[in-house]
Amino acid sequence: MLSDTRTNAGIDNIARFGKMFTWQDPGRWVVCMCTAGSLSITQGVVTAINAGIKTQGGSHPSIFAAETMYDVAQIVGENLRRQIAHHAAALTHAGASSDASILLSGQRAGGTLRLFLVYGAGNAIEATEDTPFLQIGENKYGKPILDRALSYDSSISLALKAAYLSMDSTIRSNLSVALPLDLAVIRPGALGFEIRRRIEEDDPGFAEMSRAWSNALLEAFRDLPEVR
Amino acid sequence: MLSDTRTNAGIDNIARFGKMFTWQDPGRWVVCMCTAGSLSITQGVVTAINAGIKTQGGSHPSIFAAETMYDVAQIVGENLRRQIAHHAAALTHAGASSDASILLSGQRAGGTLRLFLVYGAGNAIEATEDTPFLQIGENKYGKPILDRALSYDSSISLALKAAYLSMDSTIRSNLSVALPLDLAVIRPGALGFEIRRRIEEDDPGFAEMSRAWSNALLEAFRDLPEVR
Repeated sequence: MLSDTRTNAGIDNIARFGKMFTWQDPGRWVVCMCTAGSLSITQGVVTAINAGIKTQGGSHPSIFAAETMYDVAQIVGENLRRQIAHHAAALTHAGASSDASILLSGQRAGGTLRLFLVYGAGNAIEATEDTPFLQIGENKYGKPILDRALSYDSSISLALKAAYLSMDSTIRSNLSVALPLDLAVIRPGALGFEIRRRIEEDDPGFAEMSRAWSNALLEAFRDLPEVR
Repeated sequence: MLSDTRTNAGIDNIARFGKMFTWQDPGRWVVCMCTAGSLSITQGVVTAINAGIKTQGGSHPSIFAAETMYDVAQIVGENLRRQIAHHAAALTHAGASSDASILLSGQRAGGTLRLFLVYGAGNAIEATEDTPFLQIGENKYGKPILDRALSYDSSISLALKAAYLSMDSTIRSNLSVALPLDLAVIRPGALGFEIRRRIEEDDPGFAEMSRAWSNALLEAFRDLPEVR
């Protein structure tokens, strides 16, 4: 999972907010969530999820107590739908969007590692062998490189490069996407994070990769056959 | 200039319409236009431009008689604005969009080769050394490759490769963009088309370039340094 940290309410109102949220009980379960859309809505969802974990149920079901990742996706979807239902009319009246979506990944002991995209209506789709990656938010600029590079069998090493370069392409094309980034890597069966770190604006590895990629691209261009 | 030929009124109503239009009086002037947005609007603009050339002025000013490419852009913009003004209310009422935009390139003897983007409001911006390419329609999927590969000094050979691969990326990601493509190449000072051809669905060069690019991309990926 890779997320940027920029939010904007208009081009002249830009701020930094983390959009990646993680929970784990190492060896028992691990959950990672990335959000897109209305920040007030998605922060409300995170608050509700944390309240559910704290109270162990009640009005907010706990993702901790969920038996499967599918059930976690249902809880996240229910919270997202509730938040939107509560605020949509007033937001629309104010000329703002209440739409939001969430990427959700994780595993519980006894289950498999799964990846969901939860829509504002509360429903969710799951990544499959045919469609092994999911995107939310500003997805178009970064999609072609994922389409070409990734398959279900791609290694974590390749997937990391693809995710970085997809995000780099998006950052170059859309001012409302920017470093720092939040990165999380969960290997199947690990029931914990192999990587969970912030990539800062001066990260030498990210800048080097972006440069190396631009050079590789231009070289590949030169080597392509002439076309008319 | 490179254009696809697919239009759609909903995902279940797809058709093939050329969106590239060319006019020339070799050695005197050459004009190439690509359209995006409401097909009825842009076909109306082309009809009005042809009527203007035929009647040599009158209610429709002739792009043939325009003194500069800037004046041609004004004529195209005026026609586009008129079409939208005439149809916008009824289209909006019908739940359809009346928005459209046009890429316009060309040269007149005594002037320079210029490239404009004409908006639905009739205004236009011109490509510059800082921003040497312009896009309309489904522009996001294809932009990263243009951003990385193109500069004002790029050769026609490189620009052709970049345009093809940008379009190929878009075709892969969006069903509403598809082969065949229309291609036009105008060199500064030539006052005519160096290339003006249709790239059909079974074009071996286009398929070969797409394959070669996918391979080059995966190779470049493998050669990139490992990241964490």
